[in-house]
Amino acid sequence: MSLFEKHEMTITKAIEALHVRTFFAAFPENPSPAIYGESADSSGKEKFQAMLGKNFEELNQGDAQGWAGQEESPYTQDALGIKYPSISVDVLTARAAKAFHIWRKVNAKTRAGILMESLERVKGRFFEIAYATMHTTGQGYMMAFQASGPHAADRALEAIAAGYEELQRFPAKAFWDKPMGKFNIQLNKEWRAVPKGISVVIGCATFPTWNSVTGIYGSLMTGNPVIVKPHPGAILPIAIFVSEIRKVLAENNLDPNICQLGADTFDKMITKDLAEHPAVKLIDFTGNSVFGSYLEALPDKTVFTEKTGVNSVILDSVDDVDKVAANLAFSINLYSGQMCTAPQNFYIPEGGIKTPSGTVSFDAFAQKLVDNINSLVDNPKAGPFVLGAVQNKKTCDRITEVEKLPGKVWLRSRAFENPMFKNARVATPVVLEVDASKKEIFGGELFGPIALLIKTKNTDQSLALAQELAIQHGAISCGAYSTDPVIREKIADEMGLASTPVSFNLTGGIYMNQNAAFSDFHVTGGNPAGNASFTNADYVNKRFTWVGHREPVKAA
Amino acid sequence: MSLFEKHEMTITKAIEALHVRTFFAAFPENPSPAIYGESADSSGKEKFQAMLGKNFEELNQGDAQGWAGQEESPYTQDALGIKYPSISVDVLTARAAKAFHIWRKVNAKTRAGILMESLERVKGRFFEIAYATMHTTGQGYMMAFQASGPHAADRALEAIAAGYEELQRFPAKAFWDKPMGKFNIQLNKEWRAVPKGISVVIGCATFPTWNSVTGIYGSLMTGNPVIVKPHPGAILPIAIFVSEIRKVLAENNLDPNICQLGADTFDKMITKDLAEHPAVKLIDFTGNSVFGSYLEALPDKTVFTEKTGVNSVILDSVDDVDKVAANLAFSINLYSGQMCTAPQNFYIPEGGIKTPSGTVSFDAFAQKLVDNINSLVDNPKAGPFVLGAVQNKKTCDRITEVEKLPGKVWLRSRAFENPMFKNARVATPVVLEVDASKKEIFGGELFGPIALLIKTKNTDQSLALAQELAIQHGAISCGAYSTDPVIREKIADEMGLASTPVSFNLTGGIYMNQNAAFSDFHVTGGNPAGNASFTNADYVNKRFTWVGHREPVKAA
Repeated sequence: MSLFEKHEMTITKAIEALHVRTFFAAFPENPSPAIYGESADSSGKEKFQAMLGKNFEELNQGDAQGWAGQEESPYTQDALGIKYPSISVDVLTARAAKAFHIWRKVNAKTRAGILMESLERVKGRFFEIAYATMHTTGQGYMMAFQASGPHAADRALEAIAAGYEELQRFPAKAFWDKPMGKFNIQLNKEWRAVPKGISVVIGCATFPTWNSVTGIYGSLMTGNPVIVKPHPGAILPIAIFVSEIRKVLAENNLDPNICQLGADTFDKMITKDLAEHPAVKLIDFTGNSVFGSYLEALPDKTVFTEKTGVNSVILDSVDDVDKVAANLAFSINLYSGQMCTAPQNFYIPEGGIKTPSGTVSFDAFAQKLVDNINSLVDNPKAGPFVLGAVQNKKTCDRITEVEKLPGKVWLRSRAFENPMFKNARVATPVVLEVDASKKEIFGGELFGPIALLIKTKNTDQSLALAQELAIQHGAISCGAYSTDPVIREKIADEMGLASTPVSFNLTGGIYMNQNAAFSDFHVTGGNPAGNASFTNADYVNKRFTWVGHREPVKAA
Repeated sequence: MSLFEKHEMTITKAIEALHVRTFFAAFPENPSPAIYGESADSSGKEKFQAMLGKNFEELNQGDAQGWAGQEESPYTQDALGIKYPSISVDVLTARAAKAFHIWRKVNAKTRAGILMESLERVKGRFFEIAYATMHTTGQGYMMAFQASGPHAADRALEAIAAGYEELQRFPAKAFWDKPMGKFNIQLNKEWRAVPKGISVVIGCATFPTWNSVTGIYGSLMTGNPVIVKPHPGAILPIAIFVSEIRKVLAENNLDPNICQLGADTFDKMITKDLAEHPAVKLIDFTGNSVFGSYLEALPDKTVFTEKTGVNSVILDSVDDVDKVAANLAFSINLYSGQMCTAPQNFYIPEGGIKTPSGTVSFDAFAQKLVDNINSLVDNPKAGPFVLGAVQNKKTCDRITEVEKLPGKVWLRSRAFENPMFKNARVATPVVLEVDASKKEIFGGELFGPIALLIKTKNTDQSLALAQELAIQHGAISCGAYSTDPVIREKIADEMGLASTPVSFNLTGGIYMNQNAAFSDFHVTGGNPAGNASFTNADYVNKRFTWVGHREPVKAA
């Protein structure tokens, strides 16, 4: 049985799921022993610990110029001490250029089978990846497991499925028979999906696998060799993915340099040299807007970006104000506001929020939100695990700056004790009240656990501000609460024009930060928060070119 | 019966044709009276003549700042004297911005029905359009009829079909039901295809409808208002299309400004102001590479270009050298080399071309080609109609320059008499021999009836040069002749890497210049000849953004 046959049913289901967009997941998100085995967690933890302080050899990437690594755990604030091979841009691209001519000639079924098999292997390492993710990103255990393991694998599968489907969109051959009256012109035509060339996938420090695997698997599925350039602060999780891809390639007698890791360090970044190398044709990037916009403007490259945005919550009217405050408090606390989908600007009318039992004033809602944030932070069984740790020290500095801004500070950021990691870099949310006239304060992204409560004249102004910022600065998510169907439709329509997806009236165990593969497009590509979307047709189609050849049918 | 129901079968067949890519055409290319009616031709000619020297009123575009027009017939070298409304960029964009919010809310079926109906109306004006095309572009009658009429309408239908299909790609709504163990999270999700905004379609002087209708219909189908900015030398053919679209819109109680004509004159071009206007989000362009690359680099615009390229013919081995020479001579003469798909560089090995009856030397093949060109030019029943007239006087100047270049001139350009238009601006092909070392001569596009015979060491060098130029300067078509399947595959593979479609071994009544809707992609988008392709999924998908909203299912 070929690897494609082994995984064919999953690929078929995934393609169907891409279209129907009902719930689908191929990799279980629950890290329970019943699913992953009794010793999966402890064994994963041990394997992670065994990697610390050593060279990461399993990539087996041939001669390196040296070994280096500067990852540091936000939980211990100690260096991980793991070193990765340092390989020059010229060597990486030369190896990729050679591998290109092998990989592009491998048919779509074989590519899909190999890539699916690599995900299957990675599944056996989800717990290692979870600990690697915790100790590079600062995510809590559960998020680290889910986001870097099963959810990332589902997003990767999504890219495989979308790529596989698009490669089948046109026939390999067709007989073209045109009646001309007294005779017919008969041509044999053929179409080839020609991959664009070397693909560089640039990772971020907060979601080192989830945000990178779509580009990696999307490029590989469509026949392009990939160089993965992780964030120097979060290499290990994606290095494990790359290792497994390389092993499956080698087992199938293919050049493992079809997928390479191009790790670097903070003091010697290779990103620009890689991106600007003339042989590099495709670039995937997650990160800040300045660098993302620089990449988008590079000539003769096809670039896919997820940059940053300003995410809004519009509060108009609610059924149950306490459930709303609880839901939003969780969204704010989750991973200390370090998700690209986390809410930042909360627009609340000065007249308050309408409820079935009367209006809840701006101040009353602010207090409910603060109380809910505190109660989650102070719950020792939940708070530390929901908040996790802060990846980058600069985020802590930003919080301090926000507290100095003009406006009432409803809640100051503080430290809390993580029962397992006494030295964790932590910060609880700051909540600041800002008037709607102070666009200079809330008009840009303030990354981290920072919530701004913006007092507006009314919901129309709330919506106008949310739309304006999404169009000008980008937005990846939006929350909205309204029990009025006319207002709801207006928000859906106006935020739609700003290419921003809206989560309406969320309460309970589902949050606006969350984003499900096979159903929720991640980033729309239609506003400055990014030019690509996980995973629509463009996301894979732009990685190759359809070329048609033709020739007359020979007379028999 | 709705307009959609009226045209549903055609749309359904067109969508199927897009996928199977066998022969399909909805609009008959044969201008015979049996198909279009006994008086269709004479009546079309009369209507065209009746337009000369008058204001083109039927657009009914409201107040104009003035009326102007500078079209001139390449056949008579006289001004047509037709004047079009001059409307400022601010007025055009303000009207389009208003129309946007009407058109985007019209559903896909209604849009498709209206657009199909407009094509049906245009079908009744194919002969008018043919004469309008002859007397602006210089095309011969048959090409003018086919390219600007049925072939353009088929390309427009292709864009309607592709757009309609892509708008159905994701469901309007889905019920998302995620098992969480003890409970399920249930969300209603919905997806909206949000059009990007005002679309500007910039036309060219040689194919004023064929190259513009895909952008016009592609943008309209996906909900964007369109401003058509024709080349000031070739307005009338596309003005008739725009008029018919506006009439059908008005009949259906929709703002006709959903599609406007923004005509200008050579002395006061509005193209840059339109393209750079912040409200303009989509730009389609056919024309020169310098302006096309300027447009591609504009920030915050989605740009579709067809620029210029260097088209090659690789001659290795043939079955029947005379048939090959006859086929290529026709390709060179057709519309005096003014097609973007016309061949320019003919790579012939210094050792000659292999045939079943021995090798044909470089010189012998050159002479055959020259003889075939002459015999077609000198055939009074064919020559003048195949060559047509020269659109732009600069093309004639270029021919003169080529004759001065170093290298043997195998054939000088000359005039010939057009029996119907004594004053036609005409030029027969110049054929120049160039050594393969002289890349400075053959390395760029020489638009017009200019054929360069390049003497190479062997077919490997021929292919290497054709590939190199396609990658560096772009290519839209390629011809190749080889009876060796290994060489044939090598050419298919290497030119594929340069994103250039190859026509192999064409002889008889099919030419490398020709390009059939629903089967041949026009321009691949993968080399510098253009970044878009008629009509792949990207061509329509990039005109709108998928935005997904979601909301919990209310407890019953």
